[in-house]
Amino acid sequence: MPDTTARLREAAYALFEQQGYAATTVDQIAARAGVGRSTFFRAFGSKEDVIFPDHEALVARVAARLETLGSDPGSAPIGATEAARIVLEHYLAEGDLARARYRLTASVPTLRDREVSSTTGYRRLFRDALRTWTGEEPGDDLRAEVIAGSIVTAHNHVLRRWLRGDLDDAGAREALDRALGLVLTSISATASDARSGAALRDGTTVVVMRSGATVEQVLPQIRAALGRERPHEGPSPA
Amino acid sequence: MPDTTARLREAAYALFEQQGYAATTVDQIAARAGVGRSTFFRAFGSKEDVIFPDHEALVARVAARLETLGSDPGSAPIGATEAARIVLEHYLAEGDLARARYRLTASVPTLRDREVSSTTGYRRLFRDALRTWTGEEPGDDLRAEVIAGSIVTAHNHVLRRWLRGDLDDAGAREALDRALGLVLTSISATASDARSGAALRDGTTVVVMRSGATVEQVLPQIRAALGRERPHEGPSPA
Repeated sequence: MPDTTARLREAAYALFEQQGYAATTVDQIAARAGVGRSTFFRAFGSKEDVIFPDHEALVARVAARLETLGSDPGSAPIGATEAARIVLEHYLAEGDLARARYRLTASVPTLRDREVSSTTGYRRLFRDALRTWTGEEPGDDLRAEVIAGSIVTAHNHVLRRWLRGDLDDAGAREALDRALGLVLTSISATASDARSGAALRDGTTVVVMRSGATVEQVLPQIRAALGRERPHEGPSPA
Repeated sequence: MPDTTARLREAAYALFEQQGYAATTVDQIAARAGVGRSTFFRAFGSKEDVIFPDHEALVARVAARLETLGSDPGSAPIGATEAARIVLEHYLAEGDLARARYRLTASVPTLRDREVSSTTGYRRLFRDALRTWTGEEPGDDLRAEVIAGSIVTAHNHVLRRWLRGDLDDAGAREALDRALGLVLTSISATASDARSGAALRDGTTVVVMRSGATVEQVLPQIRAALGRERPHEGPSPA
């Protein structure tokens, strides 16, 4: 009964916004939706469950996209950033519901904890998919985890700005493109010793991306970078 | 009464491991510690609070370290990674208590949610400290957030391996050094256009870190990197 589910969700959010989350009972939600208490519990496990999106269905779609990633060094991270777009589009399609959930979870600590915790599933999904690419073993997969974390962080940064109303739909899509571009740059660096750069034994790391330039074109930048780099030291004590 | 607090915590963990978290009452914890119920509630707000570390004190120490970061491009990210070491050392000092907490939070969903959610505070702390360095505005601080996220992810990756018993104390310190080194490489790339590298107009980005090498030493790596780079293309459809 998807109609009942949607009606219950709508009723719940209306009551949460009117009288607060804690003060709202399952009976009130069911009554407002014009159904009985048992109908509520056929649709949702608890009052809290009304709030959260169907993460399972979304996770399955993202997982399906991630399964198409091969171990091709050039394309796996790009495919992963594309999978992140699926998640943003899901929230954009939810529209006001997503924004109402954001206001609510921000104001109730246990809901916020659950919301934050739900991002763990996405991080794990991206990490496991990227492990083929980094060539790491389960449990010893730092690179895959850092890259996955960056993708999720970049996505959530943009999503949060949209949820707050700082960005409209078009602005959010554009911001996600830019954010994922930044992450791709950083991925190139974290994978540098295996893939697109080189590490010298004395600790100097050189990362070169997006070739097309000759060494001669690149040289002035390298000289400048070497010249203005400082030795790596911590800041002096305040 | 720090002794009472420690005794209550010890009693609580012993009971949680023996008979499970849900089945253990505050009265049982107090009785085992040889104190009354009201003494328990002077030390802790709830049964759940016994489990979690004193995040406030730890966050204050990390914040104090982060306050010493200036806007110096060379040292701010390194100082931030050093602040992450403070957190690892805190857990290493807790020893078995930290490992018992890990087993417990892994098995009780609401505890796990709270544990995961507590990392948000650290992410925010690092993000705000790094914003001076990235030169971003609050709310529009993607770079600072991605870098902060990478530091926290790298730290938690190593911490988790130690909590599971995959690493001993020395192994964890070593693994954190390597993990933070990886993050520093990625920071260099995410900040490349503004700080420690250079972007050419044709899209080639060169990042050079940890100077000490001459251009001549670095050249072979650059040639190799330019030679084996592939153009950035999306994956072919599966």
